[in-house]
Amino acid sequence: MKILLKDIKYLDFKSTNMIEASIGIENGRISFIGDIPSDFIYDEIIYGNRKVAMPGIFNAHTHIPMTLLRNYSDDQNLWSWLNDYIWPMEKKLKADDIYWGAMLGLAELIKFGTTCFVDMYFYIDKIGEALYESGMRGFISRGLIGNEDSDYKQLQETEDFLKKWDGEANGRIRGMVGPHAPYTCSSEYLLKAIELSEKYDTSIHIHLSESINEVEESIRKYGLTPTENMERIGLFKRNTLAAHCVQLTDRDIEILSENNVNILYNPISNMKLGNGFARIKDIKRSGINIALGTDGCASNNNMSLLEEIKILALINKGLEADPTIIPAIEALQIASANGIKAVGLEDELGSIEIGKKADLTILDLNKIQTTPINNEISSLVYSLQSDNIYSTIVDGKILMKNFEYYTLDIEKIMYNINRISERLSL
Amino acid sequence: MKILLKDIKYLDFKSTNMIEASIGIENGRISFIGDIPSDFIYDEIIYGNRKVAMPGIFNAHTHIPMTLLRNYSDDQNLWSWLNDYIWPMEKKLKADDIYWGAMLGLAELIKFGTTCFVDMYFYIDKIGEALYESGMRGFISRGLIGNEDSDYKQLQETEDFLKKWDGEANGRIRGMVGPHAPYTCSSEYLLKAIELSEKYDTSIHIHLSESINEVEESIRKYGLTPTENMERIGLFKRNTLAAHCVQLTDRDIEILSENNVNILYNPISNMKLGNGFARIKDIKRSGINIALGTDGCASNNNMSLLEEIKILALINKGLEADPTIIPAIEALQIASANGIKAVGLEDELGSIEIGKKADLTILDLNKIQTTPINNEISSLVYSLQSDNIYSTIVDGKILMKNFEYYTLDIEKIMYNINRISERLSL
Repeated sequence: MKILLKDIKYLDFKSTNMIEASIGIENGRISFIGDIPSDFIYDEIIYGNRKVAMPGIFNAHTHIPMTLLRNYSDDQNLWSWLNDYIWPMEKKLKADDIYWGAMLGLAELIKFGTTCFVDMYFYIDKIGEALYESGMRGFISRGLIGNEDSDYKQLQETEDFLKKWDGEANGRIRGMVGPHAPYTCSSEYLLKAIELSEKYDTSIHIHLSESINEVEESIRKYGLTPTENMERIGLFKRNTLAAHCVQLTDRDIEILSENNVNILYNPISNMKLGNGFARIKDIKRSGINIALGTDGCASNNNMSLLEEIKILALINKGLEADPTIIPAIEALQIASANGIKAVGLEDELGSIEIGKKADLTILDLNKIQTTPINNEISSLVYSLQSDNIYSTIVDGKILMKNFEYYTLDIEKIMYNINRISERLSL
Repeated sequence: MKILLKDIKYLDFKSTNMIEASIGIENGRISFIGDIPSDFIYDEIIYGNRKVAMPGIFNAHTHIPMTLLRNYSDDQNLWSWLNDYIWPMEKKLKADDIYWGAMLGLAELIKFGTTCFVDMYFYIDKIGEALYESGMRGFISRGLIGNEDSDYKQLQETEDFLKKWDGEANGRIRGMVGPHAPYTCSSEYLLKAIELSEKYDTSIHIHLSESINEVEESIRKYGLTPTENMERIGLFKRNTLAAHCVQLTDRDIEILSENNVNILYNPISNMKLGNGFARIKDIKRSGINIALGTDGCASNNNMSLLEEIKILALINKGLEADPTIIPAIEALQIASANGIKAVGLEDELGSIEIGKKADLTILDLNKIQTTPINNEISSLVYSLQSDNIYSTIVDGKILMKNFEYYTLDIEKIMYNINRISERLSL
């Protein structure tokens, strides 16, 4: 597929500015920026009139099949939320449910302009199938919970996924090893996970220091914070993506910085579950790479990274009493290029440059809430609504344009979700 | 116009639940709930299939013509923001600009399901015109800034508005007296404002304790906090709507509670300008009525109260480390019924009951981000996007349905906004 973005403004992180040019996409990559070659015959054209292209939105921490549990349990204490609602319901979920839940999640990601995501859940072979069909780019891990020998089944599922799916679909589908959290895995089990990650050369995806309880329990049990404990075990030898990181000590931040751990920040989920606010100012100062995620739909309750981008920029201004913190351009970097950096693909993705793979989010600013356009970059962070998302392009292919899906059958997805929802009698 | 909402779920604050029934609207009021009278011939019908009706969304603090200054100056310190950007630009605005800026603001309010708003700006006769044409319900005040005798012109403009517009359009258009803030009005000037409010029996709309600087300056000048000073002057003898109230002492909260002052909470604006977080938990405990507003588009930068509702519910969970604070139903009350209470119209509006005026927001939950519908009330707060807003009904008339405006010419508004925007060469 050849796509022409005609006279469009695009977000350039190097100059931290918008640049207007025509952009060609061919064989999955950006083939030119500027003059349109005379032999370039496009299959699709998007006119730049009041539209803006940005490096694709990257949702760095999700559990996409949890769309099934959306609005199922809110305004609850964390323990009751997990114990009385989420875990019992997850036990009812079958492989087919996960497939359709993932499909709904992918539809939502595409609707909100997302071009890549990092996921952790179960029945991941089904998530692989859905991901394959959707055309989306994603990193999938099996959430590993284990304190006993019997739990090695989940490691086996991870390995099965990696063998079958890792690198498939022109590299759109990738695997990770996903130990759920320091408090749900024994040290021995974590060592097995690290080993598997080494064998297949994958990154690690983990929840880390999400709540005060987790930190207190770790100190009681090991005399170490979760971060200190993970360093001791050697987890950070692998490229690690650590979700939440709300409750960090100064020393924790040093450790994460020294080990080039990537923090996946989830401001909405962290507030919603009463876990508080990550120390973004200190984390930034330490040089840690921060990416942005929505978390699952049971703790958000949607998968719009647009909301997360605005909240990221706002909260930290409020917390630090400083309106200059996280200016709009930085919020956009965190929401796109920083995700790509976290998964080590910055040579291939994360900016709009000739030769790079074409993962793009196209915004239409010709809407009431983005009129007048006094500043496109501010507009993307502070004014955007979901109807501003015009097109989602992954690997040089259009997944959605003008509210029309190119790869997904939305009616079929909605039908199946409602069918499953009735069965679960949520 | 007769409207039938057929078999629709509606939000009932008394039972804090959704109830399914048919609802009739006739002569601007809810004429029945339940069985459809055999002689009821409707002009418009809205089918309840996956739709939800709620008492209209109330945007309690806005400056609607500031849509013109959207994204014009962000990520700036408050003083530079006001002094170098907002105030110089506002000096360039003419009466015709304000008319079109207000029109764009009204279009945005309607798009986001708003049925009433409380505004403060200048050239308010033009805002009255726009409000009249739009079909929206609103409370308009002239922002009064005065320390010298020469400034009584603004009081005169307020009086002119009240004479011409107050109670017009079947009571949709109302005036208030709007002293801008304690720090921009002298005591003598405030007394004049109070007098005018008494003469025309209006409420007072004021900015109060928005920033630490304001509080420090007041203590330096008067030995009193802004709240203490306003009590001394006698402002609170009038029904008062006080915007922001971020920096309150315990004593301030007592004073506001004792005087039945209404707090207009603007979480996004307060964060964006680095002013911090209002003490919602303490304010709630004191019994103060809290309503919710977006503030103007230069400090938000849109007029979606949906964003504000979600953020209201989230932030306070984060700040108090308690996920049970401000449950969804309470967030919806704050965003609708509490606004009505603040303006003293609870006998006429603020709930869906037979005989009450029909100001309703109709949500369509048949969208990806609100599927499955496990809990409508949670869904309205945590999952909603602008495309869930199906219809805005004010005074028994449809202002927007299925993304189509009934009273406004959007093309014309967009054309004029772009024309003005070019002239201002923002």
